[in-house]
Amino acid sequence: MDGELAKGLEGVVVAQSELSDIDGAAGTLLYRGYDIEDLATGASYEEVLYLLWTGALPTEEEFEAFTSAMATERSVDDCVLDTLDALTSADERPMAALRTGVSMLSTTDPEGDVAPRDIEAAKRKGRRIVAKTPTILAAYDRLRRGKEPVAPSEELSHAANFLYMLSGEKPGAVATETFDMALTLHADHGLNASTFTAMVVASTFADVYSSVTGGIGALSGPLHGGANQDVMQALFDLDESDMTAREWVEDVVDRGERVPGWGHRVYDVTDPRATLLRGKLQDLAEASGETRWLDYTTTISEYLVDEQQLTQRGVAPNVDFYSGSVYYQLGIPIDMYTPIFAMARTGGWLAHVFEYQADNRLIRPRAEYVGPRQRSFAPLGER
Amino acid sequence: MDGELAKGLEGVVVAQSELSDIDGAAGTLLYRGYDIEDLATGASYEEVLYLLWTGALPTEEEFEAFTSAMATERSVDDCVLDTLDALTSADERPMAALRTGVSMLSTTDPEGDVAPRDIEAAKRKGRRIVAKTPTILAAYDRLRRGKEPVAPSEELSHAANFLYMLSGEKPGAVATETFDMALTLHADHGLNASTFTAMVVASTFADVYSSVTGGIGALSGPLHGGANQDVMQALFDLDESDMTAREWVEDVVDRGERVPGWGHRVYDVTDPRATLLRGKLQDLAEASGETRWLDYTTTISEYLVDEQQLTQRGVAPNVDFYSGSVYYQLGIPIDMYTPIFAMARTGGWLAHVFEYQADNRLIRPRAEYVGPRQRSFAPLGER
Repeated sequence: MDGELAKGLEGVVVAQSELSDIDGAAGTLLYRGYDIEDLATGASYEEVLYLLWTGALPTEEEFEAFTSAMATERSVDDCVLDTLDALTSADERPMAALRTGVSMLSTTDPEGDVAPRDIEAAKRKGRRIVAKTPTILAAYDRLRRGKEPVAPSEELSHAANFLYMLSGEKPGAVATETFDMALTLHADHGLNASTFTAMVVASTFADVYSSVTGGIGALSGPLHGGANQDVMQALFDLDESDMTAREWVEDVVDRGERVPGWGHRVYDVTDPRATLLRGKLQDLAEASGETRWLDYTTTISEYLVDEQQLTQRGVAPNVDFYSGSVYYQLGIPIDMYTPIFAMARTGGWLAHVFEYQADNRLIRPRAEYVGPRQRSFAPLGER
Repeated sequence: MDGELAKGLEGVVVAQSELSDIDGAAGTLLYRGYDIEDLATGASYEEVLYLLWTGALPTEEEFEAFTSAMATERSVDDCVLDTLDALTSADERPMAALRTGVSMLSTTDPEGDVAPRDIEAAKRKGRRIVAKTPTILAAYDRLRRGKEPVAPSEELSHAANFLYMLSGEKPGAVATETFDMALTLHADHGLNASTFTAMVVASTFADVYSSVTGGIGALSGPLHGGANQDVMQALFDLDESDMTAREWVEDVVDRGERVPGWGHRVYDVTDPRATLLRGKLQDLAEASGETRWLDYTTTISEYLVDEQQLTQRGVAPNVDFYSGSVYYQLGIPIDMYTPIFAMARTGGWLAHVFEYQADNRLIRPRAEYVGPRQRSFAPLGER
């Protein structure tokens, strides 16, 4: 393999993994061998985290121990809240605020000085990061709206607690189930750029705070996170236009533009996560009576499938096509969609870190030098 | 290349680069085609930065414009100093404090909202990061010692200003020249794990703050940064022992242990950076009259070369063997050696980011799934 340029590392196998298996032709996604549909409909995000980090779904006793430990770790220190307050005063963007907030968490970790190769300690640190990330995000959103942060509740599930801290009101069953499912659906997805970033950082045995901070940074890039925000923006454009959904999508296609949320680098058929979230969009529409977003996405989808025959050409709806409308109906601000993706994916970043560090090798590729040689130097005054 | 496991990506060529060329057999290092010795002895760190980022050494006019712009950007906002104060109160470690401090800088960047693909804007942001990183580090070190931070001076060079902010006193010529050379010697070195991290993050078109934050995280790992601290610790052990340097090194070798600072993954002969720093160690010893660290390293080196014939076996002193004693004689606290490495290498991380983004491709390798399939799911109550 020496010497051949593998730009973007496309197709290069950098590690073996037991975490997620994607079959793009069949449209299936497994976590640790379990079908994503079983997990999304039958298990909570906490169970999925436990599965990803340990390899097995928890028994009731294990679940109780894991979730109660995590629930007690939700608060963040006042010094972190003060920094978030300063960031919102300076209009910092959400992903950058999350990066700084999570980076700062290491300062209060009770095991900050534990040897970096202690993977059990790393798992406890990871649990603290997952526990506190929603608190950071909800506090950031409230502070920028001039509201006091809401202290986390130890009584609520991970998903329900986030919605509670964001709005100050305990969410209903449909909202909680929906958000919990969205977290599970975004928890892991092979070696995307942010997961790989977390692994490269971890391969130096840097601590998990550095890995997760790196992952957040990578996910903030427009080529990675952010597509669900684009879908919602498109649906707003439609909503504010004088066109019907059918006219709007015809117009987009006629102009030769892509409809956001369609097509995926890995899936040739419908992303299984899209199917599951579409079901939740229906539940939300029924529960709220607001069917607009469901109607828009249904009309767009029917046109692209029936008239444009996109799915026959390997272009199908991906998870982003539905997640935007789902989050919108949950009352989540649009610029928080990528941070929520980060909040869910932190579980997967950490799972890959733990797995890679258990059989670690420093990740250090080469660059081929193609520049000049033997340039003759002249000091500043003689140039 | 598909399917073959390339763990650690050793030998995998991920990009072409015109930045640094290392010949491990000849013991040479080039930046942009210039020999490291010419640059280290004939150019300042600011000129080297300009070279790495643009491809050419600056004329006097270009140098003046670049350095004066950078000098005016050295101050950091009070909100960053407040956060650093909170971090030192909580005993945060230096690399973690640097990671948080640099992450926070994005909040006051005047071009924070500029489109991420604008590489000229990215270069200005990068210049601000390089300008402010020494201010963060010096403030952190003073705050933890209960002292007020020293405001940066626009009159001093990048190297002199850092030493000034650290101690509060303007450094002498030998100290300034030495530290400036150390920065140049650490500015770039191919695709090490931290540089690669910065590139992976940048490949999503995340902004430069995310890339540098990722690089700092990777460099904080014990398999990457930190070796110069190990060398200095070993020299302290020797100094506090009852042994002569010769007895000490014999004892280390007899116990089958490695002498830190000897051997390098890339160099089979003496690291050219080691030779240059050894010269500066001599200058510092002459200027101060304190020859202890020079004597220790000389005796250890002579024993390993003459008696153990390590260099004939491809094991020679690397840059870390001398940088520790150099920094020690400059009055820099030992746990700041890795942060100083980060401060210098930020220039290289950014150079690779700019180069890669100019012909960008999202970095996304694969993992081979080796876990189970079709596991049958049972809900929590039935496990």
